Amino acid sequence: MHSNPHISAAFDRDLEAIQALIMKMGGQVEEAVAAAARALVEQDADLAAQVRAGDRVIDEMEHRVNEEAARLIALRQPIASDLRTVLTVFRISAALERIGDYAKNMAKRTEIIIELQPVDGGAHSLRRMSRAVEGMLKDVLDAYIQRDAALAEDVRDRDAEIDQMYNGLFREYLTHMMEDPRNITACMHLHFMAKNIERMGDLVTGIAEQVIYLVSGELPEDDRAKADKTSTPAGGAPSQ
Amino acid sequence: MHSNPHISAAFDRDLEAIQALIMKMGGQVEEAVAAAARALVEQDADLAAQVRAGDRVIDEMEHRVNEEAARLIALRQPIASDLRTVLTVFRISAALERIGDYAKNMAKRTEIIIELQPVDGGAHSLRRMSRAVEGMLKDVLDAYIQRDAALAEDVRDRDAEIDQMYNGLFREYLTHMMEDPRNITACMHLHFMAKNIERMGDLVTGIAEQVIYLVSGELPEDDRAKADKTSTPAGGAPSQ
Repeated sequence: MHSNPHISAAFDRDLEAIQALIMKMGGQVEEAVAAAARALVEQDADLAAQVRAGDRVIDEMEHRVNEEAARLIALRQPIASDLRTVLTVFRISAALERIGDYAKNMAKRTEIIIELQPVDGGAHSLRRMSRAVEGMLKDVLDAYIQRDAALAEDVRDRDAEIDQMYNGLFREYLTHMMEDPRNITACMHLHFMAKNIERMGDLVTGIAEQVIYLVSGELPEDDRAKADKTSTPAGGAPSQ
Repeated sequence: MHSNPHISAAFDRDLEAIQALIMKMGGQVEEAVAAAARALVEQDADLAAQVRAGDRVIDEMEHRVNEEAARLIALRQPIASDLRTVLTVFRISAALERIGDYAKNMAKRTEIIIELQPVDGGAHSLRRMSRAVEGMLKDVLDAYIQRDAALAEDVRDRDAEIDQMYNGLFREYLTHMMEDPRNITACMHLHFMAKNIERMGDLVTGIAEQVIYLVSGELPEDDRAKADKTSTPAGGAPSQ
């Protein structure tokens, strides 16, 4: 907080402008994720190519957000909670940029999968998972702009569902691969796409934690049960 | 730059302390990567468990680095290139933390793989790839502490080799899977481990780019030929 109300008002105005940029960037990322999933389901190579090309725009937006945030620090020299708020901007923009990267990677894999023998139902399960993440992303951006810790907490809880969907897909794709070796290449790519979406969920959860930190001043404890069991000995991996 | 030499000296001293923390964190991450690869090759579940447990230490180090960097900004109110230097700290610590996460994930998968039928040569190829990344990580930390842009550029170039090794492993594991369905589960995990190492290479490259930015004031152009062809239609994916 600044003792000088003029500086404080200027800081708030600049911060609002940066937050507006983040919301715009978030909207762009949301669209990229939705388009990447749609390209897969509809086997639409043109749409996949658009998603790939569009990632550059998201990268530029991150760059712009970071530049503005650095300028705000240099110009207004915020301390305490104001500084914390600006530093959060870097983390949120980095998370959004990485979600965009995963969407781009999904689009690349879609372009390959289109050329291969289709795998029954594989794309539709992925799209369901992707829709759940899109909903989380939309909500976490709302939680951010409204400083709504309860909504952020809700988003964080929903990540367990994404992890469960991922576990289901992990088994589904393994089964397809074992049944017919001609499915192996496509299933590998579908598998990586599922993992991409699962990571998007983790990144959205990270944003939710930043929102909770902004509101409460503390990062939540890591008490969330980690539901991705495919890389722990106790679960997931079929005995085969 | 500060016009007041006393503030500048204090800033430099604080920054040096933070950089020492980053070097320590980097050393810890290097060890985690090496141990994760060794646990796989030696089928050593205890070592894998140690790597998993050790990730908490890395996370705490990142937290400490970020706290100190935020404190430095609040206390010394750096501007221009000093501010840029401090903001780089957040990016480098975040990259190191993520490399640590990937090492932890490798350790988790090793614990599963140990229980499965071994895949010929699969672990050794991974270790070769991991050693290349460990070398890059070591060099990029040296480049950082010495502000050596040429060494950072060299590290950046070497990422293409990592991508090539990944492409080779992608094909190798697919072949094993197609030859014998009993290999599928283990190969899926080996595959994800190869991808983890490939991502570590990308993260090290990101650190190299931050070093170049620190020295030259500009991020390098994205002119590096992307050698991971497995998720682009033109390459990688076997026609099968």
